[in-house]
Amino acid sequence: MHINCTKDDLVYGVQIVNRAVSNKNTLPILSGILLKAEQNKLTFRATDLEIAIDCSLDVEVIEEGTIVVPGKYFSEMVKRLPSGLINLKNTDNFGLEVKYEQSELVINGHSSEEFPSLPEINGHMKGSIRQDLFKKMIKQVAIAASADESRPVFTGTLLDVVENQVIMVATDTHRLALREGIWEGALVPEKISVIIPTKTMLEVARISGDEEEPLLIEVGNNQVYFTAGNVSLISRLIEGQYPSYRQVIPESSKCKSKIRVRTKKLLETTERASLLVRDEIKERYSLIKLKVHDDILEIESHAPEIGRIYEEIPVFLEGEPTEIVFNSRYLMDALKAVDAEEIYLELIGPLSPGIIRTVENEEYIYLILPVRTS
Amino acid sequence: MHINCTKDDLVYGVQIVNRAVSNKNTLPILSGILLKAEQNKLTFRATDLEIAIDCSLDVEVIEEGTIVVPGKYFSEMVKRLPSGLINLKNTDNFGLEVKYEQSELVINGHSSEEFPSLPEINGHMKGSIRQDLFKKMIKQVAIAASADESRPVFTGTLLDVVENQVIMVATDTHRLALREGIWEGALVPEKISVIIPTKTMLEVARISGDEEEPLLIEVGNNQVYFTAGNVSLISRLIEGQYPSYRQVIPESSKCKSKIRVRTKKLLETTERASLLVRDEIKERYSLIKLKVHDDILEIESHAPEIGRIYEEIPVFLEGEPTEIVFNSRYLMDALKAVDAEEIYLELIGPLSPGIIRTVENEEYIYLILPVRTS
Repeated sequence: MHINCTKDDLVYGVQIVNRAVSNKNTLPILSGILLKAEQNKLTFRATDLEIAIDCSLDVEVIEEGTIVVPGKYFSEMVKRLPSGLINLKNTDNFGLEVKYEQSELVINGHSSEEFPSLPEINGHMKGSIRQDLFKKMIKQVAIAASADESRPVFTGTLLDVVENQVIMVATDTHRLALREGIWEGALVPEKISVIIPTKTMLEVARISGDEEEPLLIEVGNNQVYFTAGNVSLISRLIEGQYPSYRQVIPESSKCKSKIRVRTKKLLETTERASLLVRDEIKERYSLIKLKVHDDILEIESHAPEIGRIYEEIPVFLEGEPTEIVFNSRYLMDALKAVDAEEIYLELIGPLSPGIIRTVENEEYIYLILPVRTS
Repeated sequence: MHINCTKDDLVYGVQIVNRAVSNKNTLPILSGILLKAEQNKLTFRATDLEIAIDCSLDVEVIEEGTIVVPGKYFSEMVKRLPSGLINLKNTDNFGLEVKYEQSELVINGHSSEEFPSLPEINGHMKGSIRQDLFKKMIKQVAIAASADESRPVFTGTLLDVVENQVIMVATDTHRLALREGIWEGALVPEKISVIIPTKTMLEVARISGDEEEPLLIEVGNNQVYFTAGNVSLISRLIEGQYPSYRQVIPESSKCKSKIRVRTKKLLETTERASLLVRDEIKERYSLIKLKVHDDILEIESHAPEIGRIYEEIPVFLEGEPTEIVFNSRYLMDALKAVDAEEIYLELIGPLSPGIIRTVENEEYIYLILPVRTS
């Protein structure tokens, strides 16, 4: 290959695909970035076999060709190149010559023949959704996914599509987040339900812009394919049966105490309480007790070796006085993700799950199981 | 104790003394911060027995007293308090009650009796220097100090004062940095030479402002005492004989090749070359070859497993063509610290040390030993 491009092109391309570069040493070629010059486009590609990311940019292609360069070194190097025009050319023996100003460097690379090819998509479902919406949905839902690899289904995020409605769900069995959205583009066929690795979803959020541009989604038998502008991401799907989340969420009619509270106020209190970590407990979390009566929410937490905290927040209470104990981290995660000035906290009693909803709309639901303390 | 202060007071005081809080578990009381209310002042103090930092603020003292609070928890907590007035009060049994808005928390603390008292200064030398100047001197010199604790003298920074001239020196025996400065205040007596831990110096730079305010320095037998406004820092001195640095620096008259070069240009080139790290070498550094002739500086570096680089920079050369090989990190450190648009690189030959000076003045000298490659 032989091309002319700019420093900014290289920095942009590398930064997009970098997250898919493998950190493991098991297959050395996967620590590289594939560069491919073809038809006036330079394509960057990296894969760790879980996900693959592709980014194509318009450049001046003098001669088509490919090479694999070491990912870490190449990304550090391009950041340090001077601004302006860069000339890239393959040398004999799998080197890449980089020329800039009066200078040049040569990077030892590898043949692209060793680089794994991408799986082909046998598209079952094709559709599109606004990038800014999908990005927000991911940020609100992914927080509830589990990091425990021994139960793969819970490390994933469920994508449930029926006609033009999309539902995204994640749960680690202690809390559950659910967000609804609307398909913008056509959807063929009209129904699909897949579990996507949450790590993949976070990468999809990263390549998605804050604009209304469409994110194209294609779901195959074992893979899912996302395209946002000049960037594509392919990921495996997680096999297994996702739990029936509808049954877990109590109906609104069962709610006995509906508390309207300012999100920021409750978050700040929860953050202070969360510092009272019980070191004797392996997973390092603090318990927070919420008690509501007469339009006052009392919050208490206590760790014998550190200290205790007691706070009061003014709220609007519809229904009965009650109390409940949560893991403060689960509450904190929800309050950070909810993106609304006020929320409803709906409680049934000390032994039933609490539900957080936004006051403006019901597109987002976050459910937390209580902790039994007696 | 019982006081009223603001959240900002607490955040400021904690942030100043936090660096002296011990991370080691050997003496649990040292992981605490001492709070002392006395004569309308709240004093924060922390020490790891190497250095101690004190910070005093004007607050409303209702009742004098002291307490030691856990450093890490207290500093995380005060950052999360709401803005505004905070009321602090000792409880029975060494607790600290913190009241704010309608809320309160209690932090379990310790008696201040267990907290080590500060060593008394038997002042031999007292003087003062501008904070902004001293801060800059530290930043330019400390980079050359060694991290190798087996030779304590080289982990220190030499402070040499004769009449109104102060000289600061650090060296790890591979490179040496020297900076001259002027005392602003009176100096009694007129001569002193002490080795201060470089870690202490970096903390002194941190507590020094960017203004012309005086930094008071008092040197005792084993300690040094710095005062910048309401903050004091006490540190031990390093015992031992500092090498005679004057003999190491070649006289300007011996220089055979004087190269004038733009600092930024040479730094950027050196940074690119420094990425060619030789993994086989334990200390992970790259060798960079500088070759000068006809107002061109050629820079080359090569790591067989990664690649190679060749760059050219326009320079002004007075004297003979020559070449030299450096450890790129030592050159990079100097070029980052020098704070001048242009430098002189003075060379005697491939086997003699290279000297970097600023073009505007000669207050700063940075010497690098060459690497023999044959």
